[in-house]
Amino acid sequence: MTEQRRGRRGRVAASAPQRQVDYRNLRSPFPTMNAISEDRVEALHEAALTILEETGIKVLHDEARTFYEKGGARVSDDMVFIGRDMIEAALATAPRSITVKGGAPHRDITLELGRIVFQPGAGCPHATDLDRGRRPGTLRDFRELVQLTQSFDVLHMVPPLVEAQDVAMNLRHLAMTEIQLTQSDKVPFLYSRGTPQVMDGFEMIRDFRGLTDAEFRAQPWCYTIINTNSPRTIDLPMAQGLIDFARNGQPSIVTPFTLMGAMAPVTVAGAITLSHAEALAAITLTQLVNPGAPVCYGTFTSNVDMKSGAPAFGTPEHFSASLVAGQLARKIGLPWRCAGGSAANIADAQAANESQFALWGCLLAGATITIHSAGWIEGGLSISYEKMITDLEVLQMVAELCAGTPATEGDIALDAIRDVAPMGHFFGAQHTMDRYQTQFYEPLVGDWSNFGTWTERGGIDASTRATGIWKRKLAEFQPPATDSDRLSALEQFVARRTAEGGANPES
Amino acid sequence: MTEQRRGRRGRVAASAPQRQVDYRNLRSPFPTMNAISEDRVEALHEAALTILEETGIKVLHDEARTFYEKGGARVSDDMVFIGRDMIEAALATAPRSITVKGGAPHRDITLELGRIVFQPGAGCPHATDLDRGRRPGTLRDFRELVQLTQSFDVLHMVPPLVEAQDVAMNLRHLAMTEIQLTQSDKVPFLYSRGTPQVMDGFEMIRDFRGLTDAEFRAQPWCYTIINTNSPRTIDLPMAQGLIDFARNGQPSIVTPFTLMGAMAPVTVAGAITLSHAEALAAITLTQLVNPGAPVCYGTFTSNVDMKSGAPAFGTPEHFSASLVAGQLARKIGLPWRCAGGSAANIADAQAANESQFALWGCLLAGATITIHSAGWIEGGLSISYEKMITDLEVLQMVAELCAGTPATEGDIALDAIRDVAPMGHFFGAQHTMDRYQTQFYEPLVGDWSNFGTWTERGGIDASTRATGIWKRKLAEFQPPATDSDRLSALEQFVARRTAEGGANPES
Repeated sequence: MTEQRRGRRGRVAASAPQRQVDYRNLRSPFPTMNAISEDRVEALHEAALTILEETGIKVLHDEARTFYEKGGARVSDDMVFIGRDMIEAALATAPRSITVKGGAPHRDITLELGRIVFQPGAGCPHATDLDRGRRPGTLRDFRELVQLTQSFDVLHMVPPLVEAQDVAMNLRHLAMTEIQLTQSDKVPFLYSRGTPQVMDGFEMIRDFRGLTDAEFRAQPWCYTIINTNSPRTIDLPMAQGLIDFARNGQPSIVTPFTLMGAMAPVTVAGAITLSHAEALAAITLTQLVNPGAPVCYGTFTSNVDMKSGAPAFGTPEHFSASLVAGQLARKIGLPWRCAGGSAANIADAQAANESQFALWGCLLAGATITIHSAGWIEGGLSISYEKMITDLEVLQMVAELCAGTPATEGDIALDAIRDVAPMGHFFGAQHTMDRYQTQFYEPLVGDWSNFGTWTERGGIDASTRATGIWKRKLAEFQPPATDSDRLSALEQFVARRTAEGGANPES
Repeated sequence: MTEQRRGRRGRVAASAPQRQVDYRNLRSPFPTMNAISEDRVEALHEAALTILEETGIKVLHDEARTFYEKGGARVSDDMVFIGRDMIEAALATAPRSITVKGGAPHRDITLELGRIVFQPGAGCPHATDLDRGRRPGTLRDFRELVQLTQSFDVLHMVPPLVEAQDVAMNLRHLAMTEIQLTQSDKVPFLYSRGTPQVMDGFEMIRDFRGLTDAEFRAQPWCYTIINTNSPRTIDLPMAQGLIDFARNGQPSIVTPFTLMGAMAPVTVAGAITLSHAEALAAITLTQLVNPGAPVCYGTFTSNVDMKSGAPAFGTPEHFSASLVAGQLARKIGLPWRCAGGSAANIADAQAANESQFALWGCLLAGATITIHSAGWIEGGLSISYEKMITDLEVLQMVAELCAGTPATEGDIALDAIRDVAPMGHFFGAQHTMDRYQTQFYEPLVGDWSNFGTWTERGGIDASTRATGIWKRKLAEFQPPATDSDRLSALEQFVARRTAEGGANPES
């Protein structure tokens, strides 16, 4: 739900009607855009199948290779050659609709083509804000960013917004999972950094949600991101993650990271062909492990600056790659993830424009999940608190569009148009009076005052206003209500596992 | 054309292949988005016809009322009641495709559904930049802004970017038209501020383009913007403009300015119904004056802040209104204009986000001309030089999307994918080497350097970099080649008319 409207004196007007728009269950109102023709989509798909059959994927993980081999693949050393029959069988069993459970019914999300799900920026080693500056991410930053994620309905899943670099790697997963469960009731994330860490995560979630083992495995309660190593490699932790999550009925979001000209061909069609091949291989593994296991298709494809090798985002190529990936996602019918984001170094007009341009690529591509949709900057090296807020404004406005445009006779307002004289105005018309309190979206950070008023108030720009907003949100933050026994049990688990030495990441 | 690529040392690499993307002739690659169902589109159209028939339009202009009456309308005092037969007849004669001539063949533009034409911000009383601050617009500002408009292929028409407030009203049209003709070869604009000013403008354009009267009238060589006075009024200069331009075969871009809750109903459907009715009335007048006269449909519909009355742009309501207008434009089949823009007071993330959000509304609405697409700020009270540059980046990226995504076998790059080993890279692949110099869009103002490099270079944000860009563009500016006789003739015309006292605006 959107925030309650505040009257002119800042109080919530008790009797004023409340504008209520659902920001949680978003169904895309946008048409999908085709960048290439249907027969070229077929050609890309065929090329990907040919790559898998003839050129193969390097799979470092023994058990994964065994799964592929038992499924009919040809294996030679660590190269796996997957036939199209296996791919088609996997695409036939992979579910088209995945409901991932949160900590409360209204936090459950459904992943399927046609839905829109937003995640803020993720995977950033640094955090930055206008108060404290740029710094390596800490657990405190992660806690705050999870609280901010919790505070906005238009963010639907919790990602690893920032790496808690001040917590040792053997304990970080414990700390970050604990925060996700206690500071948010939204769908939580687990890293795939080896089975021991994943099992810790599963256990924490299972117990905190009050589930039996069977109940946990019967439905999705969390997710992971699987990046293949482009080109054409699935490494140990990624294969282990695909296996562990599939075994336990939890979704992997398969995401080849294919930057054009770097780890992928320099063309959109080439990069997406490679990405598609790798994604199909990863999806197939999940279905070999557990036919019917939930899995999302995905890509993270953009271009680089060919002079410096620096990744670029929010470019025409990023947009086009998203569109082509969307066409392939619709061909195979699976929910899928795409990404927004910016390469800018500060939350300025470049950052805003690149991120929004990338977002529209995802929306018109029909992406189910748009990751990095708020806050992501420096090509993912930092997450900006201020940009999270200014990006959220755009996401909220997209959610408003999802609510649709009514055009009843009452909306057409023929009577009002008749009643207001030429060159009159509608401010006082009954039609207006009946509606004005709830008619329009009220901005989160946008300031519509005139130049004089704005100057008198200090001439404050959007990012600076955003600082005030995230601070206020954190100051007012109330964690979701939690069963105190489960809270204690969680704390005790973390303490015990910490004393035991946690679990080192595996690679 | 895009700018020539510069090699690492800043020189144009003489032998390097040049990236060439046509930014001039843009055909929309975007699907159109329907906000309401077809039968509700019909309902809005019907309601507009009913308003025109039964409630009427106030027409202050005697000759205009005569045209309507002779065409079959019922006239009572200054109220005109237009029957649907007249509207349908007008829509049947209004051309679906309008070619407006510039000063050179490559500057001609075609206005029809499916094309994309961009204009920068217009109608602003102030100009602002980070160097000189905010000030009432001057002729110097107008000259600079026209030069900037000329400097970017992705801006297709010249609008009245800023009012030259330091030139008296009886001479301003002469000065601003002279600048448009000498500093640019793009399609010029004339104000509709009374017949004498319009005739001055026609004469200047006719003679500068080297045309006879008949040649001038036979094709469009300029355009005007006609704002009806909502609700339900066409005032004197606007009616005179419709008549003068239609008589002379020059297009009016009909643009009701209908802010929801102010001069229009508070609902999207109501505001667009009113806008549609007024636009139909204005279009009908042009066809009564001269059946087949070029005319564009249009609207400028957004919402206001109901607490302050301040106009808002780049809102969900602005976006939705654009979509509905687009559905009506497609119903009647005419090229049409829509608008972008922002209510922000400074070129910050709000300004960027609002403008880009509004732009996407126009693109998905299938707008032919998107006005205010670069630089427009403070809800139109100022044009920002810096924002013009940062907005241009987005327009250029949209133009890149118009060029399409190739997916040939060469683009799919199967051989390259085969040749690069797992976990290798494509930087040195022949496929990459053959393409990298021209493969990607190079940003105008976007900076992709990493945080360290960016900090070393001064930590400069996008708007500050934009200052450097517009300054460089102005310093390097070369006006289009002009016939020196025509230049002298133009100067003499302006001098003579000035000595004669110019022409006062009429209202």
